[in-house]
Amino acid sequence: MRRRLLTPGPVELHPKALLALSQPQLHHRTEEARRAVLKVRRGLKQAFQTEGEVLILTGSGTLALEALALNLFDPGERVLVPVTGKFSERWAEIALALGLSVDRLDLAWGGVIPPEAVARPGYRGLFLTHSETSTGALNDVRSLAEAFKDRNPEGLVVADMVTSLLLTEVALEAWGIDAAASGSQKGLMCPPGLSFAALSPRAVQALKPKGYYLNLKNELKAQAEGETAYTPAINLVLAVEGVLADLLPSLPEHLALKKWQTGLLYQVGEELGLRPVPEEKSPATSAFYLPEGVPYAKVKGAFARRNAVIAGGQGPLKGRIFRLSLMGHFDRYDALGVAMLFKEAWDEVAG
Amino acid sequence: MRRRLLTPGPVELHPKALLALSQPQLHHRTEEARRAVLKVRRGLKQAFQTEGEVLILTGSGTLALEALALNLFDPGERVLVPVTGKFSERWAEIALALGLSVDRLDLAWGGVIPPEAVARPGYRGLFLTHSETSTGALNDVRSLAEAFKDRNPEGLVVADMVTSLLLTEVALEAWGIDAAASGSQKGLMCPPGLSFAALSPRAVQALKPKGYYLNLKNELKAQAEGETAYTPAINLVLAVEGVLADLLPSLPEHLALKKWQTGLLYQVGEELGLRPVPEEKSPATSAFYLPEGVPYAKVKGAFARRNAVIAGGQGPLKGRIFRLSLMGHFDRYDALGVAMLFKEAWDEVAG
Repeated sequence: MRRRLLTPGPVELHPKALLALSQPQLHHRTEEARRAVLKVRRGLKQAFQTEGEVLILTGSGTLALEALALNLFDPGERVLVPVTGKFSERWAEIALALGLSVDRLDLAWGGVIPPEAVARPGYRGLFLTHSETSTGALNDVRSLAEAFKDRNPEGLVVADMVTSLLLTEVALEAWGIDAAASGSQKGLMCPPGLSFAALSPRAVQALKPKGYYLNLKNELKAQAEGETAYTPAINLVLAVEGVLADLLPSLPEHLALKKWQTGLLYQVGEELGLRPVPEEKSPATSAFYLPEGVPYAKVKGAFARRNAVIAGGQGPLKGRIFRLSLMGHFDRYDALGVAMLFKEAWDEVAG
Repeated sequence: MRRRLLTPGPVELHPKALLALSQPQLHHRTEEARRAVLKVRRGLKQAFQTEGEVLILTGSGTLALEALALNLFDPGERVLVPVTGKFSERWAEIALALGLSVDRLDLAWGGVIPPEAVARPGYRGLFLTHSETSTGALNDVRSLAEAFKDRNPEGLVVADMVTSLLLTEVALEAWGIDAAASGSQKGLMCPPGLSFAALSPRAVQALKPKGYYLNLKNELKAQAEGETAYTPAINLVLAVEGVLADLLPSLPEHLALKKWQTGLLYQVGEELGLRPVPEEKSPATSAFYLPEGVPYAKVKGAFARRNAVIAGGQGPLKGRIFRLSLMGHFDRYDALGVAMLFKEAWDEVAG
């Protein structure tokens, strides 16, 4: 029995990704590579729902987040960063490392950001985390963008969509989101190594290019022609191309499946008496508090004995929660199997 | 007949790389992943011949070059950058983008840097390109480091070893090189997407950490334990692990093979009346001037009809040279086959 990843990224690979990765090397300065780069950019524009640009960057999601912060803001500019988990905290760290003037708004981990908390004037930017992977919470980024822009009409809203893209609906311009970032190893069910920077037309106009590898103006120029400024992880571009071709034609059904799957995990967990962590549930991952007296190692071990890898808590939630995700390539049957495995493992933990 | 890459990166993949890439996804926060990260770091320390540290970064080689420049120098510090091709020119661009005070020393493309050119005082750093892939030239970085440090004993010598690592001998401390960068898609015969920052013990001491994703102090802390600061391209780490296990036990024989293979291409080319580009030949790639009246497209086409992808010139050498490389996975038989193919293709070009 091969090991299954029930982790909120990296995830079980899509067969089209594995197929692409088992091919001989393609050179990136060829017509075939240019066609793939352009096709992936078009597919991702559809996924992000933007008429702007999506840039493919070789690096992890964090690189795309930093690239957006670096290319859309100047040092000293004031930004608001609500923190409700590890990844929204990373936004604050990135903004500080780049010398922005950061107002960090600490809220409960597991909670969502109330729109009134960001309805504050005087900011050049708002950094949001759509799906907070560390807690399983889904923020209503549309309402947040609206509340923020009501007070800061010139401000830019930038969203971490690492675990929302292709897992729940996302829409840039329609929601007032100016820019967003994601990666290959989550909803795209590919290995880690590629990240994406999505720019609405407004964000393209607002670019203040900086740096070298992270300079988005250089990438924009190259990628308009299907090139990249530097050698890309072209094998992953082909993997993403294969997966997008499978997902995009039936995206609503795919998103409904992901929502049902995570709902199933919550249903099982609640039947087992477990308390969910998030206030609003993201389809990216489930997250449960560990009952009093149950150490995380015991839960991890019960799943490991069934060849399943799960995730614990991060930061202040370390040792207090566990997370189970069906973000990867799981169909209905697979999800039902995992639900049964969850019950079986929990019988061992509780028994 | 499948297509062969005779390009100086990306290259024909090592079978161990393909094998690793066809496996189910491994999660990076597992003991198995930590062991692989530590093993690759040890193997690369051996390859770079350093007692310092080698950090694995998810991104292309350019990212590792920028990370070294960012973390070893402060804006305004004076650095010397001799330019003899596209990649040494990239060093100058990176240094400028980071706000260093750059003395760019323009020399002939295809030439090597004479040690007396860098025997100039007043510098905090010297940026070198060991194997200049755009021209096929190999610099004597050891003599250059010596000449530079004779005048700048406190200075740091940083080398681009993207196409020298595992293709010709490299040695950090023994040669007076303080830091170096390389990537996965050259001598390592893996897909692009991973880069490496090698730091001698002296460079580790000299770190002035900056940025977020490129902050080498954060990586050093995480990688000491086999972790990485952000989600790594772990599939490529496993590919590199497989290739290193194959190459390192017989490295001298491997380097001799690579030297012989590139020598063979030059021998064939010179027999065909072609003039080599480089003053000193790197085993990474051959490079020849196009004879008067022969357009690059004609040469490219002759190889393409034989299912081989070759490379042209870059920058001022565009349309003036062509490059053939056996950097990837080619044994003696393969190389002899490519030599015959070269003759056959050239008969068509010249006939």
